[in-house]
Amino acid sequence: MGKTTRTKAVIITIGDEILIGQTLDTNATWLASQLHRRGIEVLRMLTVSDREEEIERAIRQSIKDAELVVCTGGLGPTRDDITKEVLCKIAEEKLVFSQEVFDWITERKRQQGKEPNELHRRQSYMPTGFDFFKNNRGTAPGMLGEIDDSIIVSLPGVPYEMKELMTEQIIPVLLEKLPVEISAVRTLLTAGVAESELAQKLSGLEDNLPEGLSLAWLPGHTRVRIRLTSRGDDRQEVEQRLDECVARVRDILGDIVYGEGDDSLEEVVFGLLRKKQLSLAVAESCTGGFIAHLLTLVPGVSACFKGGVVAYSNQIKREILNVNEETLSEHGAVSAETVREMLAGVCRNFGVDTGVAVSGIAGPDGGTSDKPVGTVWVAVGGVEKQHVEKLQLNLNRKLNIEKSGLLALNMLRLFLSRD
Amino acid sequence: MGKTTRTKAVIITIGDEILIGQTLDTNATWLASQLHRRGIEVLRMLTVSDREEEIERAIRQSIKDAELVVCTGGLGPTRDDITKEVLCKIAEEKLVFSQEVFDWITERKRQQGKEPNELHRRQSYMPTGFDFFKNNRGTAPGMLGEIDDSIIVSLPGVPYEMKELMTEQIIPVLLEKLPVEISAVRTLLTAGVAESELAQKLSGLEDNLPEGLSLAWLPGHTRVRIRLTSRGDDRQEVEQRLDECVARVRDILGDIVYGEGDDSLEEVVFGLLRKKQLSLAVAESCTGGFIAHLLTLVPGVSACFKGGVVAYSNQIKREILNVNEETLSEHGAVSAETVREMLAGVCRNFGVDTGVAVSGIAGPDGGTSDKPVGTVWVAVGGVEKQHVEKLQLNLNRKLNIEKSGLLALNMLRLFLSRD
Repeated sequence: MGKTTRTKAVIITIGDEILIGQTLDTNATWLASQLHRRGIEVLRMLTVSDREEEIERAIRQSIKDAELVVCTGGLGPTRDDITKEVLCKIAEEKLVFSQEVFDWITERKRQQGKEPNELHRRQSYMPTGFDFFKNNRGTAPGMLGEIDDSIIVSLPGVPYEMKELMTEQIIPVLLEKLPVEISAVRTLLTAGVAESELAQKLSGLEDNLPEGLSLAWLPGHTRVRIRLTSRGDDRQEVEQRLDECVARVRDILGDIVYGEGDDSLEEVVFGLLRKKQLSLAVAESCTGGFIAHLLTLVPGVSACFKGGVVAYSNQIKREILNVNEETLSEHGAVSAETVREMLAGVCRNFGVDTGVAVSGIAGPDGGTSDKPVGTVWVAVGGVEKQHVEKLQLNLNRKLNIEKSGLLALNMLRLFLSRD
Repeated sequence: MGKTTRTKAVIITIGDEILIGQTLDTNATWLASQLHRRGIEVLRMLTVSDREEEIERAIRQSIKDAELVVCTGGLGPTRDDITKEVLCKIAEEKLVFSQEVFDWITERKRQQGKEPNELHRRQSYMPTGFDFFKNNRGTAPGMLGEIDDSIIVSLPGVPYEMKELMTEQIIPVLLEKLPVEISAVRTLLTAGVAESELAQKLSGLEDNLPEGLSLAWLPGHTRVRIRLTSRGDDRQEVEQRLDECVARVRDILGDIVYGEGDDSLEEVVFGLLRKKQLSLAVAESCTGGFIAHLLTLVPGVSACFKGGVVAYSNQIKREILNVNEETLSEHGAVSAETVREMLAGVCRNFGVDTGVAVSGIAGPDGGTSDKPVGTVWVAVGGVEKQHVEKLQLNLNRKLNIEKSGLLALNMLRLFLSRD
């Protein structure tokens, strides 16, 4: 953390649906990450009900403690939504009908073939003294004003409306108004290696991080993220220091790092396939379609991905993938020999260059002393050259499926990038 | 809502990782649903940092406002975790070494082949005047005490540790100590019909709900949940009123309701298949393995589910599913004719009684004026009897895939239950 005094923020979520445990508040977490990334310190997050006195008390307390207060929720047209009234009360402003907002809502509604109604008219009343921001995804505008030296932002509660307003319109204004520390963040994504092992590899670097740099571990079941943050007074220095550190981490970890930021393993695999002009098919037993599902989430993947077989029964392994009866009876469905034949079978029968084949025991039943639940065999490659590996997982059914699917994709990534 | 004064609660989450947006706080939502279900009103949720003064202020304010304060986090053995110290300070109690806790941690560690260390010794100090509860999943005990007529509960932040402690040990104690209103909840699950249409069907019932009953809508992209809550003074009456209302809703909605509580569509489909002793395979184009993935999340599903084909390319539709070249060129891959042949093909080639076939345009590219993005054809049934339906969705790629997969499963459910 830097030594400069950081701007402090409070995030307030308004909504009864959260307090009764019906809705998970993802807005506050997203807002916190956005503010943190820009060097703003989130002091507190608070969820309160739709009741006027609760909202008022939360805002009054927050503007005492923080220079920035971000509220979400309570801006819809229904009776429950009273954030605007409360803001007016605290700021000693008035709600005034804004023809501009109403015209804009009218236009939006007409584009949808609808007419604005009484509720939309109500939504067009805005607090005097506040700036408002048109919401391209809904009808509730965002608002920004100042009360007692604190900036107060009010956003709709619908996540995609809130996110777009914040990113596109509010944050640029905040960066102008607040003394925001200069910082930069990059997150490296790794797969297939445990956090403890990665930490060992990076221990020398971590113990000697230059001033202004920090490293955080964000572990997951399969993928460990490493977030590097650089803070300081000079934009160019901050970024250069960060880039140098990222280069060192990449140097140490090599191809354990599969991407950055929001990259997904499936996107990286698709990128490699496209670059090498290879086609792909999958043969899945225990992962049951999960690998195909991940791949088909990537737009345009059909350029390389042709499809696959979910060979849940041995009959299908034999008939559709041409796995030999003898292989199954001698070595079992969960074996190196079976996944090799599944891989060769899907490549031949689907006429593709590359494939992934997985067979394992996801649980909770089906384990033996030889092959306990969590035993998974994976083969990647083609008809000729194959890489085969055994995984021994220790999770529940769902996580065994997800983790073996992701690890299989990672094996394919390494096969393609090393090949 | 009943007219009795409900017990008020505040939920406090302690942890810097939440305030920087790194971790989504699922604990508070889960706790809120548990308390709400038992008639306790959650007044506020609060997330604060690991700093002593922040924790202290949050707890002091909360015990003024609520009869119950539940804290999670800040109980681990590291320096950051100081909830216990703060509790002692507020309650004017002392931290005293508990041989009982240390012996129990020692035993847990030895079972894992390890010895307790200095940090575990530290964890064995407990505030005097507090009851503690052994944590079967970790080493941090839960605590319960009273400060100024409020009950204060402190739980570890690791979700599965927290949940088990709360459900198994803390809630029974709370129910004894607090004047908890009697209530009962059942949640009906529906699929394939929009909330507005469901609301219309239930409007008569909703307008005339008996005293003590309430109905809440929990909408989702594909599945709408209807939660019925009954409150009152007499357990038998509360439950009887609830059961009668559930029966009326089920009567009105018929097979739109696919289950209750945590039932999943895939479990319900599996139940129907098993009952009818039918085998199943899937032929997926745009859903790309998602339906197979859902089905294979169900333990034991291999008794009925044999597997499937992800026929992403037309070549695979022809070669593995025997869709006619002419069908594809005349009607296109996204057509009633193609999904009919995909269904018949997968049933024949996989030797199963029943199947699902899906072909559509998930987007963002590939749409035409005739068949815009979101056009999806689904066929369910077998070789002889088939039900075919066209969906027109309007979401992004990922949600188009998920929604069409779930709607296809729902069509299969209706086919199997009406057949």
